[in-house]
Amino acid sequence: MTLTERDKKYIWHPLKQHQTHPESLGIVKAKGVMLTDEHGNEYIDAISSWYTCMFGHCNDYIINKVHAQMQQLDQVMFSDFTHPAAVELSEKLIAILPKNQSKIFFNDNGSTAVESAIKMALQYYFNTGEKRTAFIAFENGFHGDTFGAMSASGLSVYNGPFEDFLIDVQRIPTPNGKNHNEILRQLEEIVIHNNVAAFIYEPIVQGAAGMKIHDINGVDEILQFCKNHEIITIADEVMTGFGKTGKNFASEYMETKPDIICLSKALTGGMVPMAITSCTQKIYDAFLSNDIAKGYFHCHTYSANPIGCAAAIASIELLQSEEIKTNIKRISKAHKEFSEKIASHKKVKSTRQIGVIFALDLNTNTERYGSLRDILLSSFMKEGIFLRPLGNTIYIQVPYIITMEQLDKIYNTIEKILDNLL
Amino acid sequence: MTLTERDKKYIWHPLKQHQTHPESLGIVKAKGVMLTDEHGNEYIDAISSWYTCMFGHCNDYIINKVHAQMQQLDQVMFSDFTHPAAVELSEKLIAILPKNQSKIFFNDNGSTAVESAIKMALQYYFNTGEKRTAFIAFENGFHGDTFGAMSASGLSVYNGPFEDFLIDVQRIPTPNGKNHNEILRQLEEIVIHNNVAAFIYEPIVQGAAGMKIHDINGVDEILQFCKNHEIITIADEVMTGFGKTGKNFASEYMETKPDIICLSKALTGGMVPMAITSCTQKIYDAFLSNDIAKGYFHCHTYSANPIGCAAAIASIELLQSEEIKTNIKRISKAHKEFSEKIASHKKVKSTRQIGVIFALDLNTNTERYGSLRDILLSSFMKEGIFLRPLGNTIYIQVPYIITMEQLDKIYNTIEKILDNLL
Repeated sequence: MTLTERDKKYIWHPLKQHQTHPESLGIVKAKGVMLTDEHGNEYIDAISSWYTCMFGHCNDYIINKVHAQMQQLDQVMFSDFTHPAAVELSEKLIAILPKNQSKIFFNDNGSTAVESAIKMALQYYFNTGEKRTAFIAFENGFHGDTFGAMSASGLSVYNGPFEDFLIDVQRIPTPNGKNHNEILRQLEEIVIHNNVAAFIYEPIVQGAAGMKIHDINGVDEILQFCKNHEIITIADEVMTGFGKTGKNFASEYMETKPDIICLSKALTGGMVPMAITSCTQKIYDAFLSNDIAKGYFHCHTYSANPIGCAAAIASIELLQSEEIKTNIKRISKAHKEFSEKIASHKKVKSTRQIGVIFALDLNTNTERYGSLRDILLSSFMKEGIFLRPLGNTIYIQVPYIITMEQLDKIYNTIEKILDNLL
Repeated sequence: MTLTERDKKYIWHPLKQHQTHPESLGIVKAKGVMLTDEHGNEYIDAISSWYTCMFGHCNDYIINKVHAQMQQLDQVMFSDFTHPAAVELSEKLIAILPKNQSKIFFNDNGSTAVESAIKMALQYYFNTGEKRTAFIAFENGFHGDTFGAMSASGLSVYNGPFEDFLIDVQRIPTPNGKNHNEILRQLEEIVIHNNVAAFIYEPIVQGAAGMKIHDINGVDEILQFCKNHEIITIADEVMTGFGKTGKNFASEYMETKPDIICLSKALTGGMVPMAITSCTQKIYDAFLSNDIAKGYFHCHTYSANPIGCAAAIASIELLQSEEIKTNIKRISKAHKEFSEKIASHKKVKSTRQIGVIFALDLNTNTERYGSLRDILLSSFMKEGIFLRPLGNTIYIQVPYIITMEQLDKIYNTIEKILDNLL
């Protein structure tokens, strides 16, 4: 029996309607930029397995560090103890995070990093005795699938069954360079009618919404507004973090820095799940008290799992290497050129690019999980490329180690498939 | 600088009031049953690092499987693909789970396994067109720290800041062999006034509540009541799963099997975070439709992470070995004898035991994070044993590979410390 057949017997896949999409292709190997399926076919992983394996799959540098860690210390309770990998990782992270970040809190994935941030913001005001419980978020933002994280997400693809149980969130449009007066007007309106604890946002690039890129000054204005109104700012850098926008963190583009930052995905270079919620000293200090109950009683069993920490340390070392820095510049330049070239294609409505992220919108409408998206996905796979369109958006987010030949193959295939689109 | 000093600069620990408890001991090594701190002191890990490392820390069998997996396939998107380790794990799990379990859905930790279960139950009734949105749970249950999971937890140690945002949950007492009429009366009352979607419970043993053990027939009666009222039953086996109660899963003790089971912790033998929500064919089938929106759109990036799957496969193989099965029986027998012996100690109010889980309550009252708990914890550490009292409950949950000498050291130390208690 093939993997695909065995898979169907017992496995329930995420984000999948099994009746209309019963088959899952078996992938048996990954190395560098390439995935290999059970029939021996190879594919370029052009979205880095959801923006995780940025230093290439099965990276030897990461593997060696993780293997050494597994033999030394696998797991220890972070409520009671600390360990070398967590300490080293915290030092490495604080060195590269925006300067106002002071404390590192460990989680297991993007959703729980956001849950932690939301709970920190709520308890910050609870501890200081001020009643603030509302949130502001962008339209079409995506922050995860647990109840708190779902609440913050405006991109409610299929949230129907859960809407009765979500946190109170007010939404504002994303800044496009023209609507900043309108956004500020809405913000003024929101703070009149709500006790706003925090604003949560994907800085500059909304990932799941289709790699939508925002006006930097517009984001800065919103952050400044929040600062003026003592609204805690939570940057969800789960997708944007660790070099993808051309800087280590997208928050570096704005002058006003966030109070809280959520990190995951590329944090461990695609090896194992781990996440971090970092924050300023001011947030942390609001939880210090002789009253135990003012502490932060959120915990996951594998918090600061040493294996994950070892993978993250190795990944940050790679991120800071000259080789990777040069690669990010090279890919950004190539993307920019391709973006300008493909923009005039008759099937293309618009293109956008920042760092290693490139996206184009087709000038046809299609549903997020509609048939055009399925056709595009399978056309790319037939050409040996894994690209996963979001509705009518085709986007690239390649591992930093991709060669120019591989990159050109992606560009040429996109052009070829657009040419053949009816 | 020591690890403890470096730790204080940047790290925010979970479940900790840093003002009153500023120090975290640095653990630099773990092997088998032993933890080693940065000063060279050794400790028996008498609670298996929160019930995870049941086959011993840095277990070579698990390490070798994980190392091989890291070199072959680190990560691939489970929304679109499948892979050998996920398929093999699903087959191994279905073979040992209660027979009514048919499908395996992957998560990252206990909280998200519970979030998935809650969302499955809500959407099951949403998809079938019946409005059912309330939940039933035990008093003092603990199911995790994300918003959905927090809602289900009755053990709200410090939930104050979040209470406005929790799902509607009705609570019932745990069955003690005497209160079953009262529980059934309460259940009848609840179903009259609420449209109940699901009942979520820790089967037989409530972990965080202090290893409280329930009456098996009483639990069975409740499950049968739920079945009669088409209330979905969700067994949270995050703590109890994988041999701890003397059977592979605590749900085996009851005749009536749960519709959904949550697994994590020992699933990967303490190597990396991973979780699973399994369910019956009936639950799964309610999501099958030509309408995409009836699918289950919950996903975490690292779902079915191959590294975690490899660790889980190795752990299940160990669990099924004659050596581990014999060990579990040996430890259960020793615990039972110790339980009977220590029950008559003048400082002991009561004892209880099932499988490798033993607990005693002191006949003094103390707060969950109170000073007696701190004194006990540090007394045990001075004797070279990591035991973490929950309020006035001292409990043991040792790795299956512990020797009789190590087990006797734990027993003798508990006796000695109780003798010296004022």
